[in-house]
Amino acid sequence: MSRLDLHDTIRAVVYSDGVLRVLDQRELPFVETQLECHDAGEVAEAIRLLVVRGAPAIGIAAAWGAVLEARLLQAAGSAVTQAALESALVRLNAARPTAVNLAWALARMRAVLARAPADPLAALEAEARAIQDEDLAANRHMGELGAAFLANGSGVLTHCNTGSLATAGFGTALGVIRAGYAKGKIEQVYAGETRPWLQGARLTMWELGRDRIPVKLIADSAASHLMRSGAVQWVIVGADRIAANGDTANKIGTYQLAIAARRHAVKFMVVAPWSTVDMATRQGSDIEIELRDPGELLSIAGKRTVVEGADAWNPVFDVTPAELIDVIVTERGAIERPDESAMRRLAGQS
Amino acid sequence: MSRLDLHDTIRAVVYSDGVLRVLDQRELPFVETQLECHDAGEVAEAIRLLVVRGAPAIGIAAAWGAVLEARLLQAAGSAVTQAALESALVRLNAARPTAVNLAWALARMRAVLARAPADPLAALEAEARAIQDEDLAANRHMGELGAAFLANGSGVLTHCNTGSLATAGFGTALGVIRAGYAKGKIEQVYAGETRPWLQGARLTMWELGRDRIPVKLIADSAASHLMRSGAVQWVIVGADRIAANGDTANKIGTYQLAIAARRHAVKFMVVAPWSTVDMATRQGSDIEIELRDPGELLSIAGKRTVVEGADAWNPVFDVTPAELIDVIVTERGAIERPDESAMRRLAGQS
Repeated sequence: MSRLDLHDTIRAVVYSDGVLRVLDQRELPFVETQLECHDAGEVAEAIRLLVVRGAPAIGIAAAWGAVLEARLLQAAGSAVTQAALESALVRLNAARPTAVNLAWALARMRAVLARAPADPLAALEAEARAIQDEDLAANRHMGELGAAFLANGSGVLTHCNTGSLATAGFGTALGVIRAGYAKGKIEQVYAGETRPWLQGARLTMWELGRDRIPVKLIADSAASHLMRSGAVQWVIVGADRIAANGDTANKIGTYQLAIAARRHAVKFMVVAPWSTVDMATRQGSDIEIELRDPGELLSIAGKRTVVEGADAWNPVFDVTPAELIDVIVTERGAIERPDESAMRRLAGQS
Repeated sequence: MSRLDLHDTIRAVVYSDGVLRVLDQRELPFVETQLECHDAGEVAEAIRLLVVRGAPAIGIAAAWGAVLEARLLQAAGSAVTQAALESALVRLNAARPTAVNLAWALARMRAVLARAPADPLAALEAEARAIQDEDLAANRHMGELGAAFLANGSGVLTHCNTGSLATAGFGTALGVIRAGYAKGKIEQVYAGETRPWLQGARLTMWELGRDRIPVKLIADSAASHLMRSGAVQWVIVGADRIAANGDTANKIGTYQLAIAARRHAVKFMVVAPWSTVDMATRQGSDIEIELRDPGELLSIAGKRTVVEGADAWNPVFDVTPAELIDVIVTERGAIERPDESAMRRLAGQS
């Protein structure tokens, strides 16, 4: 086992006996608090309020939210059916709009109910566990696939947080960075701080620091200057939804990293489990981009920074067109120069 | 007089009787404090600590710093000579490296001393006053010149703060925005928050709010998504140093705005007084880029956001190549598609 495994003990959500314990990512890195969720409504609220975030992690949390609700139904003597769970599933699905993993995980839970198993609660629990375990395995595999693209001595820029906190463990883009560092291919990581929620500053710096991977924080606006300095050869990011043509929705700021990377001949890698791929969405412009409360930009770390009465525009995702992406890594394989036909091949649709 | 003039009462520095009162921009917008400087050392420190910032404003402050020092010399019965003032001038010049206005203003003060006027203190005071007054007049004129490029109904994105706080008054890029709004050409302004010091969030939002110009704050990383939405036709920014070929050093993040603007066919305007032009610097790569304390990125608004022991890379300017600039506006005139020959023509060197 590599040194990295010793530290990968961070878990965004842990289910046990009717309670989903959710690490409150709003308080990290200085306070490690777990919130306890007992029903689907509490899980939906934890997702909406960013207690748990990261596309794979919110899918996993939602699956456990369905389990919690099923358990309450059973405890009340009601039948655990799709009809009985429907309003809880709808509520979970509506918690956040952009990441498709949420809908994907809930579709898997619905499919379990649709086949009417003898013990629906046990079947739902097994499915949620499988979603979680498969995500961790996918991350490990993607780490290997993605690291294979890196030359020795690489500098890497990443954005937002795509590590254990955003997934079932290990991470997507951070999984590639972990694997690449363990193989001696990465010398230096740069993390964009990722306004407005500072997932890069608060979460990625914390995760990589625990693994003793050399990382420097940069202002999001310093990325192009960094690229021109020659310090990075790759931008590696996660995804919240990948359309059928390879267009990728991810954290706000990803798009301009891709534009700048192309100008500087820096390579651009997207790392996401297949659950993030939405073959039913034809292209990026069809993806709903979440607009959040302007207030998230008007204060920082709880302190108001902008005059009263001020307005803000706060989209929290953007779309990077496939033409700016050099490689998409999923657990099914890597796609270089992604386009619709390459995506369809990996989807088994061609 | 337009409505805008009623509000343009913000002054970054005010000199009177041996005291330079400096509005403490670190505390804005919620606390309006003036620090009093009595000698050149205090002024240099105010510049270094960002009590006063903005290329034209630090040039003006430095000129008054020389006056303060001359006054102390005279009060002590010493001759006010270039030799006697040299260490103070050197100290002021070293306060910050990137903006050329600092060296330019001090060179003007040196030139006054070099001609050995009968009353050197009075001559220095007159020169500092002239530097300040000329800057205000230049801003008014640039406002007209720049606004002429805007079509009616324009949306404009700006970066950092280039208003009254950064100049003798009215502003450079914000001067064009003020003039453009007064003429009914601008419908909506967007201000990037400008990490790490948040001059956009704290200062530009405050200045434009006082003038009731419609402005929305965006995360710096949302700029490309904004451009793709079609909401802005111009990016308008200031400058800290413009090289002889038109390459422009400005606040970190400006370069990636220019890259993104070109991709989206959004026009890019740089507005700066001729004092920002450094014909002795051949190209952008010759400009020293200030690297500041990583700590400025590790905390926000006085609150630590990143784990202890973390490192950061904190360049606070970057260089936008002339090829990405559609127009440079100075009080001597506007240069479309700037290059060395166009710059030399305006400099009177061709």
